[in-house]
Amino acid sequence: MSLQPVSENKSFGGWHRQYQHDSAVLNCPMRFAIYLPPQASADNPVPVLYWLSGLTCTDENFMQKAGAQRLAAELGIAIVAPDTSPRGEGVADAPGQYDLGQGAGFYVNATQQPWTAHYRMYDYIVDELPALIESEFPVSQRRAIAGHSMGGHGALVIALRNAQRYCSVSAFSPISNPVNCPWGQQAFTAYLGEDQSAWQAYDASVLMAASKATLPALVDQGEADQFLPEQLQPEALEQAAQRSGFPLTLRRQPGYDHSYYFIASFIEEHLRFHARYLQQA
Amino acid sequence: MSLQPVSENKSFGGWHRQYQHDSAVLNCPMRFAIYLPPQASADNPVPVLYWLSGLTCTDENFMQKAGAQRLAAELGIAIVAPDTSPRGEGVADAPGQYDLGQGAGFYVNATQQPWTAHYRMYDYIVDELPALIESEFPVSQRRAIAGHSMGGHGALVIALRNAQRYCSVSAFSPISNPVNCPWGQQAFTAYLGEDQSAWQAYDASVLMAASKATLPALVDQGEADQFLPEQLQPEALEQAAQRSGFPLTLRRQPGYDHSYYFIASFIEEHLRFHARYLQQA
Repeated sequence: MSLQPVSENKSFGGWHRQYQHDSAVLNCPMRFAIYLPPQASADNPVPVLYWLSGLTCTDENFMQKAGAQRLAAELGIAIVAPDTSPRGEGVADAPGQYDLGQGAGFYVNATQQPWTAHYRMYDYIVDELPALIESEFPVSQRRAIAGHSMGGHGALVIALRNAQRYCSVSAFSPISNPVNCPWGQQAFTAYLGEDQSAWQAYDASVLMAASKATLPALVDQGEADQFLPEQLQPEALEQAAQRSGFPLTLRRQPGYDHSYYFIASFIEEHLRFHARYLQQA
Repeated sequence: MSLQPVSENKSFGGWHRQYQHDSAVLNCPMRFAIYLPPQASADNPVPVLYWLSGLTCTDENFMQKAGAQRLAAELGIAIVAPDTSPRGEGVADAPGQYDLGQGAGFYVNATQQPWTAHYRMYDYIVDELPALIESEFPVSQRRAIAGHSMGGHGALVIALRNAQRYCSVSAFSPISNPVNCPWGQQAFTAYLGEDQSAWQAYDASVLMAASKATLPALVDQGEADQFLPEQLQPEALEQAAQRSGFPLTLRRQPGYDHSYYFIASFIEEHLRFHARYLQQA
């Protein structure tokens, strides 16, 4: 698994770098970004926060807009931002649709045509990418995971199904109950098929309601979010946590919308939340 | 001068808003962004930092990428980000060139055809925009000005020629001596004509060398900036400050490039610098 450097920028005393690599899981070249804080070295491997972005995003949006690198540099945490789907000319797509196909992988392993050849973002995020990161960079195996919107859904699902692999999870404005909203139903029908029993393993509210894990979880939801009532449904997540006793902190933030301005406003609290668990011995 | 709202996002407890207005000076509709910190109210008008962006930028780049709103909210400072040139179908342009025409106004008043009908960014930034801001928003007349690259040139030139209107000035990677670099020579030839005597009034190093003002000035320059040797020439600014005794602090930052990652890394120091002078009685 060889890495090709794409760009680098010094940032808050550390380095923001983009790389391309050939993904065996996704069967195409993939780009990701990593922020390495100034503390990271072979003698001092640092923990990693994986950030999963939302619909239409690439590795760049969060790194450019969230203001997270300031905190990562202060706290000594690396951040890895993957792309949101497989990409390229040979990769299936839904032309004209922002919410299916390229840029909209939904962090699932597709079982339906024409998606099976490339759309395995779940395995990519859970296994292939961390293995690559941990073999090539001065990082430890202490991991946290977070994301926004579609990426908040991805982070919660991946953490709930792999609680032993992560120290903590957080999300902004996650698609909390995709089996019951238009974005999720469209994507799951395409990628997973008509049989809704196959959807359950990718629904954060379904998983959380049955979870025996005690992974610390923080969710922020803006109350002025244009997608709130139809697509995001944080109340489903809250009810699920109540049912299983899952340690979820879900906060509603008055006036905030779905944008990166919302993420930037609260990213410091998310980074400090993750640092508390990433840095426990 | 009526304002049309374009967008708004709650951010760090305050509001990021975009507006369009008909500019009499530029003779076209213009968009700008304003960040109003939570402290701003009719009873508590706040000072304003004007931010001038670089080549190809609009009002959005700085607001999305610099991480400045966190500090503006903490310090109680409004930020206004104008566009970098007049825009629109009827506005002269240099198709295919990123460094002339739309997106590249260079903060001058053009005297040459085909630019004179619209390209008067100097007057827009010095007079029309502050008059509009101060009549429509809960802000005081205490102003600072700052910018990046072409906008760093604009901020320094405007502050040096109007020292009584600003409390402080700062710049990242400014085009410090445009009469002696390719970007400046191309733009000034087009906008101001072949007679180089007309260029002097828009050159920060020429102005600073002759300045009797004592406006506090902070400049940061990345040492790994790809444009440093040919276009930016901070040494000319340093020599000018030495000649006139101008209170310039110019810092070279090892490893940093020309990007917003550089700006984000040091914007906190710039905001705190401006706050010190904006908030003096």
